[in-house]
Amino acid sequence: MGMGVARTLVAKGFPTHAFDIRASARNAFVKAGGTTYRNPADMASQCDIVIVLVVNANQTNEVLLGKNGALSTLRTGSVVVASATVPPEFAASLGEQLDKQGVLMIDAPVSGGAARAAKGELSIMASGEQKAFRKAKPVLDAIAAKVYRLGDTCGMGSKVKMINQLLAGVHIASACEAMALGIRAGADPKVLYEVISNSAGSSWMFQNRVPHILEGDYTPLSAVSIFVKDLGIVLDTAKTLNFPAPLTAAAHQLYLSAAGAGLSGEDDSAVIKVYQQLTGIELPKARRKKKSARKRT
Amino acid sequence: MGMGVARTLVAKGFPTHAFDIRASARNAFVKAGGTTYRNPADMASQCDIVIVLVVNANQTNEVLLGKNGALSTLRTGSVVVASATVPPEFAASLGEQLDKQGVLMIDAPVSGGAARAAKGELSIMASGEQKAFRKAKPVLDAIAAKVYRLGDTCGMGSKVKMINQLLAGVHIASACEAMALGIRAGADPKVLYEVISNSAGSSWMFQNRVPHILEGDYTPLSAVSIFVKDLGIVLDTAKTLNFPAPLTAAAHQLYLSAAGAGLSGEDDSAVIKVYQQLTGIELPKARRKKKSARKRT
Repeated sequence: MGMGVARTLVAKGFPTHAFDIRASARNAFVKAGGTTYRNPADMASQCDIVIVLVVNANQTNEVLLGKNGALSTLRTGSVVVASATVPPEFAASLGEQLDKQGVLMIDAPVSGGAARAAKGELSIMASGEQKAFRKAKPVLDAIAAKVYRLGDTCGMGSKVKMINQLLAGVHIASACEAMALGIRAGADPKVLYEVISNSAGSSWMFQNRVPHILEGDYTPLSAVSIFVKDLGIVLDTAKTLNFPAPLTAAAHQLYLSAAGAGLSGEDDSAVIKVYQQLTGIELPKARRKKKSARKRT
Repeated sequence: MGMGVARTLVAKGFPTHAFDIRASARNAFVKAGGTTYRNPADMASQCDIVIVLVVNANQTNEVLLGKNGALSTLRTGSVVVASATVPPEFAASLGEQLDKQGVLMIDAPVSGGAARAAKGELSIMASGEQKAFRKAKPVLDAIAAKVYRLGDTCGMGSKVKMINQLLAGVHIASACEAMALGIRAGADPKVLYEVISNSAGSSWMFQNRVPHILEGDYTPLSAVSIFVKDLGIVLDTAKTLNFPAPLTAAAHQLYLSAAGAGLSGEDDSAVIKVYQQLTGIELPKARRKKKSARKRT
């Protein structure tokens, strides 16, 4: 997603400076007309606005506060757009930490995946101070189809994202449970998909992920490991709040079961393989190996 | 839903004969231009096609095979359209039973609720013999926006409906869990609804039921008790198939919790009150009592 955002900004004429730990990503971005650096500190010395698009809170910390982190060179009044899915508490405390250094933060988790990032059509669930938004507005508008303004406090963006992830994670797992049971009951999985997509049982995730199952293609668009993490954030936060979340907990166990079965790096629709391994149902097979699947093996 | 279907048929010029155990429903249908009878047998003596729109398998049995049941007067070659949500095994065995009496059956559970029934816009998940469909086609086309033809065997329509209900039931319960946790975390429920409705966490049920929560209006459009029943069917069928369904089981416990708390007759979105009763979160209140709500008390 970081690559999609960076390319979009180059394409729209923003002077764009980037860092990625993978040399291959840096090289690809140079070819796309961007400039890259050896570490976040060198990069941030050239920037007024830094978008951090990494996987989790640890990586966010490392990019900003680690060795050669961006905060060491960011000027007073700069804006950090923190876009990983992180615990709301982490986002709130990071905002305070940056504030003490005179740097503004927007708590800005995103939705839309790599495909919409590449088109500049992300959804951003964003909270933070007015002056941060004023400064970052042209950049946010360039990379997003929709920026939800969720108040002045860092943490609120991450709360809304967390609730979205709770639903997304439960919906993928329930799509897998439903398709697996349907197959065992003798229904045609393609027919189930067609009928339910147009009925009250549908969800955004059912429509998006079940085609992967029908095609037998578990090339990760979003991996099982992401929901091991994201539902983990939901459950940790719920525990802190003394709040029961039995459906989230059941879904989390299914992602953990998939991870335990060695499927962490497969597409999250591979949760259906948990049911397959237990019960021996026959899942739709891939018609032919795709190039991208070959490359991975 | 039966009333909506019957009125639609009258409006479209079909000679329509009806039975309901409630005198109030019979009287209303007479006013709408239909004819009513004292029992299913008297009614069925006038019919070539009988649509059974009741709550469950027991009621379906009673209408067809009970005292003064429809089967006692139905002529050879008539068609029964069985539209309750029932266990697939029940639908299959009912089809065989009717077949032995020379009566055709379409296993035809419906989706769409009372509102779409009244407009003649149901979705029908239908399986059964070709000659049953040939005979019933004008009637099915009159009452449905979409008739899915799911093969020649009674039971398949009910399997697809069962999988749809699995998802619908899990999605409503997860919408309640998500909204409840979001409220406890300090998010504005209206904002959660707006953002998530347009994000990857959305579902048909999230969009349809969360407004009831936001309006604090639990007048039953579909009651908690329906999903106590429908997820019960899923779990019974899964057990028969030796198939684990942990998410469905967790969701079923939430509907049972709501029923145990005295909420069986409320809208299924009242599952959020389980979380409310446990944790004391503040749910959106109704602005004013609606007429329909007053009538119920």
